[in-house]
Amino acid sequence: VKIALAQLNFHIGNFEENTGKILNTIEKAKQESADLVVFAELAISGYPPRDFLEFSDFINKCLHSVEKIKEVCTDIAVIVGCPSPNTSGIGKPLFNSAFFIANKEIKHIANKSLLPNYDIFDEYRYFEPSSHFECIEYKGEKIALSICEDIWDVNESKMYSSSPMDQLIKQNPSIAINISASPFSVSYHHKRLKMLKANAVKYSIPIVYVNHVGAQTELIFDGNSTVTNANGDTVLQLKEFEEDLQLIDTSGIKQYPVVKYTKQPIAELHKALVLGVRDYFRKLGFKQAILGLSGGIDSAVTSVIAAEALGPENVINILLPSPYSSQHSIDDSVDLCKNLGSTYDIIPIENQYNSFNHSLEKQFKNLPFDLTEENIQARIRGVFLMALSNKFNYILLNTSNKSENAVGYGTLYGDMCGGLSVLGDVYKTQVYDLANYINRNSEIIPKHILIKEPSAELRPNQKDSDSLPDYTKLDEILQLYIENRKAPSEIIQMGYDETLVKRILKMVNINEYKRHQTPPILRCSEKAFGMGRRMPIVGKYLS
Amino acid sequence: VKIALAQLNFHIGNFEENTGKILNTIEKAKQESADLVVFAELAISGYPPRDFLEFSDFINKCLHSVEKIKEVCTDIAVIVGCPSPNTSGIGKPLFNSAFFIANKEIKHIANKSLLPNYDIFDEYRYFEPSSHFECIEYKGEKIALSICEDIWDVNESKMYSSSPMDQLIKQNPSIAINISASPFSVSYHHKRLKMLKANAVKYSIPIVYVNHVGAQTELIFDGNSTVTNANGDTVLQLKEFEEDLQLIDTSGIKQYPVVKYTKQPIAELHKALVLGVRDYFRKLGFKQAILGLSGGIDSAVTSVIAAEALGPENVINILLPSPYSSQHSIDDSVDLCKNLGSTYDIIPIENQYNSFNHSLEKQFKNLPFDLTEENIQARIRGVFLMALSNKFNYILLNTSNKSENAVGYGTLYGDMCGGLSVLGDVYKTQVYDLANYINRNSEIIPKHILIKEPSAELRPNQKDSDSLPDYTKLDEILQLYIENRKAPSEIIQMGYDETLVKRILKMVNINEYKRHQTPPILRCSEKAFGMGRRMPIVGKYLS
Repeated sequence: VKIALAQLNFHIGNFEENTGKILNTIEKAKQESADLVVFAELAISGYPPRDFLEFSDFINKCLHSVEKIKEVCTDIAVIVGCPSPNTSGIGKPLFNSAFFIANKEIKHIANKSLLPNYDIFDEYRYFEPSSHFECIEYKGEKIALSICEDIWDVNESKMYSSSPMDQLIKQNPSIAINISASPFSVSYHHKRLKMLKANAVKYSIPIVYVNHVGAQTELIFDGNSTVTNANGDTVLQLKEFEEDLQLIDTSGIKQYPVVKYTKQPIAELHKALVLGVRDYFRKLGFKQAILGLSGGIDSAVTSVIAAEALGPENVINILLPSPYSSQHSIDDSVDLCKNLGSTYDIIPIENQYNSFNHSLEKQFKNLPFDLTEENIQARIRGVFLMALSNKFNYILLNTSNKSENAVGYGTLYGDMCGGLSVLGDVYKTQVYDLANYINRNSEIIPKHILIKEPSAELRPNQKDSDSLPDYTKLDEILQLYIENRKAPSEIIQMGYDETLVKRILKMVNINEYKRHQTPPILRCSEKAFGMGRRMPIVGKYLS
Repeated sequence: VKIALAQLNFHIGNFEENTGKILNTIEKAKQESADLVVFAELAISGYPPRDFLEFSDFINKCLHSVEKIKEVCTDIAVIVGCPSPNTSGIGKPLFNSAFFIANKEIKHIANKSLLPNYDIFDEYRYFEPSSHFECIEYKGEKIALSICEDIWDVNESKMYSSSPMDQLIKQNPSIAINISASPFSVSYHHKRLKMLKANAVKYSIPIVYVNHVGAQTELIFDGNSTVTNANGDTVLQLKEFEEDLQLIDTSGIKQYPVVKYTKQPIAELHKALVLGVRDYFRKLGFKQAILGLSGGIDSAVTSVIAAEALGPENVINILLPSPYSSQHSIDDSVDLCKNLGSTYDIIPIENQYNSFNHSLEKQFKNLPFDLTEENIQARIRGVFLMALSNKFNYILLNTSNKSENAVGYGTLYGDMCGGLSVLGDVYKTQVYDLANYINRNSEIIPKHILIKEPSAELRPNQKDSDSLPDYTKLDEILQLYIENRKAPSEIIQMGYDETLVKRILKMVNINEYKRHQTPPILRCSEKAFGMGRRMPIVGKYLS
């Protein structure tokens, strides 16, 4: 049986586009004499459709797309993900389903059994778990069809009490097919490969694994669909961060050579961010980005990524020097724009800064300069950038990094503005790695930006190190707390300074209110700020 | 058996305060010769603890509080909600538990079986559902102990496939006790009473129902704990929106007179908002609020609610007239402040407005005045309000209503700023009802604010009705879409104009990006913007 793996970039709720892509791909697969073409989890709606699933009209539109797909299923079978109604009258109203269509008929519906409900996943919010397992017979193959999480339960920790593959294997399938919506995070594909190997070896079965590609707001899907042989080796590896369509002949899986996945984490991260920016603009129907260039490394890296995603001519860089900005910040920023071929403009903010200070003299009396005045500068920049965004239909890109977001080192409604946060899940130390990676062939980001001490330049001679610990240490502690959910006592036991640890974790916790109002953040780690990390604002723990 | 219902206001993760309250209340219950004192669901941690539950340190702190409570359980038994580890090694790592403690020992742990995972609830994210059911024998009573959702499965729609009470009733309990964390929405208590009646009648059993009171960020708990007799009639009703401790003697439940719940929805809403504001400030350790008074009804009602919550002396009203503000807006606002006894200050924004326009002349060339210039005014106000907030440690209150939030009629980083949105779940038509209710005894909100046509006053002679339909019609359509999840076709079938319906729903959908960055909104309906409504930003459906 010749199986086509269709790794496509869908758009949530864009039925016309999604169905069109599916129909075109079926046609292409037919031309390549495929017997079966496999699309990803919830391909028809896009993933994750979230509360759109609560509208019966939305579900009807999904099912209407299935009808259209049925019509072209002659001489080829199709597996496609789609929500479907739970008609039993008991349990949640929907299933997360995989439709098996052949001869213009739905021959089989496999429903997802293990519903992820952690981190960014909310599947138990919508779907009833299935407890019915049946393999599909097709042209001499017996297919164990499952959906994403259904095959993730092979490691030590048993998050679920049932195992779909344990059930399906009883029927002696000859091949397993899993349709997925597995989002990117750095190095995560290695975990997938390990999971696929564990399944293949445990059940002695080859596995066809089809994933989404493309970004949906904060979630980036890296594709990386694969075929694993019964020894657990990858024998087919689809592209990363791009649409792809590849075929495998099940009769010959044993003869395929083994493929090794060797991508560098930093190269993956870079590609992911570019795709994240590109898809956000394309799917919202925007072309041009605006951002504030400070002369620092975060806005420089953001600008480069935006230029790669949208074309340098579509990135509008604005320099907004305040009375505390240094000349080198302006020079470095201008050099960067010249290197990129992006436009830039300079709008000094001194007049507005003086004007606000003057209007507040009565209220502020002679109180000393403090964070307030720093924030005023950042917010004036926000007003300028948003005004240009409004007037010319640009989307403002936020340039904050994860380290800053974590400790609240940023101004709400100031430098925290934006339609999308590009680096909000990238720690400061990783931003440096990205910058070096960007400069791997030639100096795109001026070297001085990489070597100077980080500064917000919101008061005379300010440096980040005045209020924050060394970024290497900061990022380590943040990672232990955010990604690994370690308590202060555990982190201190690992040898970090007690006062420092407590100070940092307190900063993280008391700044939940700021992060509640940040733009969506492109997710690059297994624990990004946003929908995957849900913290109480009035919570007192560790604050 | 004398049972004390302890309806308390806990603070998420504030173990010292929560445990202290529980210990004090046990002492009080002892003094009133109670045999058993019942605390609410997850009382020890506060509800909802959200991702704090992923920290083993947090769980240890919860269990440490249980140890302290055990020590005082002499001559009295205690039922208290607390997360507890799932030691089976299979399934999620925690249970949502009710501890039954007597004679300084944990005699029984009942785990929640039905885990709500809709709207604002995420319980399946953390907890394993229980399938073990056992009644508790205590002083001659046999107690069917359950947790919140466990008894909600008595209506027509079967969201769950099992029923905890069906299991417990087999053991012939004499009384049911349910500990809850059931948040407020307008008129929701009637649904609770109906649910309690249905259970009492179905199982012929009296029910002791203990709920939380107090607000946790956006969620307001109204208390309203009750005792229902076996006929389904309420025989004891604790206070609403206040802490309360009341006793019932199980031997005499049949003799208690029936209590009717007769609260007006608008009075409930008003009390809820006041509590919501008060607790947000108290639990974050803030005393004073600042807000922008526009002369319109939304900011007027917000100011009154803040004054009731915090004391009028703690509400700083700022008038920020632009060149397009009318004199009556200033006069009306000043009158309101005088009526309230709150301070006010006037800061004209014309200088900053001119200054921004001047600095943007080169970029804007001679492009016509549009939304950009309106937004600049709103954002200048944001800068002023946040500057005062930063300098003096005020929390800025957001004054947007739900109708505006729905259609995106507001400026991101402008009038959408704030630490807390007071009216963000209150439709414009309800804001008028609230204003009339506030004025029920005397004119607190100047009458002119109630009768003038709504206007943002951001361009000459602007009125809301220039860009929005009549609010009565708008709110009806919004409610059908947001609360009732009706599709455009369904709403049109009900007789609404097709063009209007499509225009409104499109406005709702394309403004998800704005709502993603709004402050937390006090939840007053069964579908508020925020964590209870999760929509994709790049989604194309209906946009």
